Amino acid sequence: MATAVAPLTLYTNKGCPYAQRAVIALKETKIPYDAVEIDLQNKPVWYQPNINPASKVPAIVYGATQADKTVAPPNTTKLAESLVLVEFFADLVPSSHLLPSDPVERAKARFFITLVGDKFNPAWQGLAAKGEGEEAVLAAVKQIAGELDPQGPYALGKEWTIADTAIAPFVGRLYLIAKEDIGAWEAGTGPKLLQQLEQVPHWDRYAKALLARDSYKESFPTEYLSERLKERFAAQRK
Amino acid sequence: MATAVAPLTLYTNKGCPYAQRAVIALKETKIPYDAVEIDLQNKPVWYQPNINPASKVPAIVYGATQADKTVAPPNTTKLAESLVLVEFFADLVPSSHLLPSDPVERAKARFFITLVGDKFNPAWQGLAAKGEGEEAVLAAVKQIAGELDPQGPYALGKEWTIADTAIAPFVGRLYLIAKEDIGAWEAGTGPKLLQQLEQVPHWDRYAKALLARDSYKESFPTEYLSERLKERFAAQRK
Ligand SMILES: N[C@@H](CCC(=O)N[C@@H](CS)C(=O)NCC(=O)O)C(=O)O
Ligand SMILES: N[C@@H](CCC(=O)N[C@@H](CS)C(=O)NCC(=O)O)C(=O)O
Repeated sequence: MATAVAPLTLYTNKGCPYAQRAVIALKETKIPYDAVEIDLQNKPVWYQPNINPASKVPAIVYGATQADKTVAPPNTTKLAESLVLVEFFADLVPSSHLLPSDPVERAKARFFITLVGDKFNPAWQGLAAKGEGEEAVLAAVKQIAGELDPQGPYALGKEWTIADTAIAPFVGRLYLIAKEDIGAWEAGTGPKLLQQLEQVPHWDRYAKALLARDSYKESFPTEYLSERLKERFAAQRK
Repeated sequence: MATAVAPLTLYTNKGCPYAQRAVIALKETKIPYDAVEIDLQNKPVWYQPNINPASKVPAIVYGATQADKTVAPPNTTKLAESLVLVEFFADLVPSSHLLPSDPVERAKARFFITLVGDKFNPAWQGLAAKGEGEEAVLAAVKQIAGELDPQGPYALGKEWTIADTAIAPFVGRLYLIAKEDIGAWEAGTGPKLLQQLEQVPHWDRYAKALLARDSYKESFPTEYLSERLKERFAAQRK
């Protein structure tokens, strides 16, 4: 059963990992959409009042064609929050397998996603931005690796799901920062961390599968992010 | 289409609002289950290694009868995180309408739930436990009230959904603490807050509908919670 998909506008920013989640899910489901790039340093005055009260990206307007992208027509739905959007796109196109059809597998995917937000992201961001210990990163990665389908290649097995969509943008940023050794840490910390991550059973294969996926690669502007992250951590580097 | 529901054990605690979410969803879906009460002040030694590595409630073991509830047999699934469990129970029994069938409505329910965790809970817990300002509570309640179906009685309209399940245990605790005026605040703050909440369009009607629902009432041990919360905030009361 295919749900008819209505016109959709994504408000996004090419540097934002949360927005990248939405883009990956749109690519995986092949839902047609228009994109509006929002400059986060200089937000358009219409964005917060007309599109997203929280004033963040990603956000969408769904349901009817917008002649004017700065307003949401009355018969449309405004939605925000990357994980809500990812599940929404998955719900619109069940044949994409972005959401597994088995309730137990769905629950596993959603549990995996709680680990991304509660463990993985705080740990690596603490290391990259504040020079906090690698131990927390390794512990989070080990816990996540313990949840991976042992056959892979993706978190739940053969199909790319919401779980992979939720973690990929963050794994991409961590690996970029580590490879280029540009975190707010002592020189050499990045490459050393990558070596340690290679030793975690199942993880290395999983990280490579994430970073090789087309929907991920097409939405990860490596050079732009490399410049931006280099600047961001420059002041705190040791 | 009815999914066959397998044996399920819920590890729970009668004082825990997250566990109450799971209990409400089980009651709404009428899924049969066994409950094991976990003493959080004195956790059984088997709980963390055998059932939930995060050592929190709620958690479940799903898929086969457990002769011994202190272990999860090999052919079972261990799951945790209240919101994951609520969606899982909803997925097992689609006819419960706990999860709306329309993707847009589902997305609205999930967005509503992000407001509960990101806005409503931090605001009222900041007030009740640390005497932080009522303004944040009123702002969060107004934002949530703005998302309510104007006809009601529930967040999304006629049917009780995951959105109501996610917020009800917390509304119940806030109202109890406010009515009995037992927060870590100046005497009189609770009743004054309740009066202010009554003025928020749509909210008062919604709060009453939540607190009148059988699945909520049956899982809210008023006297026990009243005692416990009184003790908890006693030291900080002004
Ligand atoms: N919880 C949100 C987070 C989105 C978010 O933080 N986006 C950032 C950019 S990466 C943003 O829009 N920041 C602008 C601001 O906060 O003013 C989600 O998952 O979508
Ligand atoms: N994010 C979890 C939170 C669950 C939680 O914090 N439960 C508390 C009791 S209300 C707990 O088990 N605490 C025990 C501990 O942390 O040791 C959920 O939504 O299920």
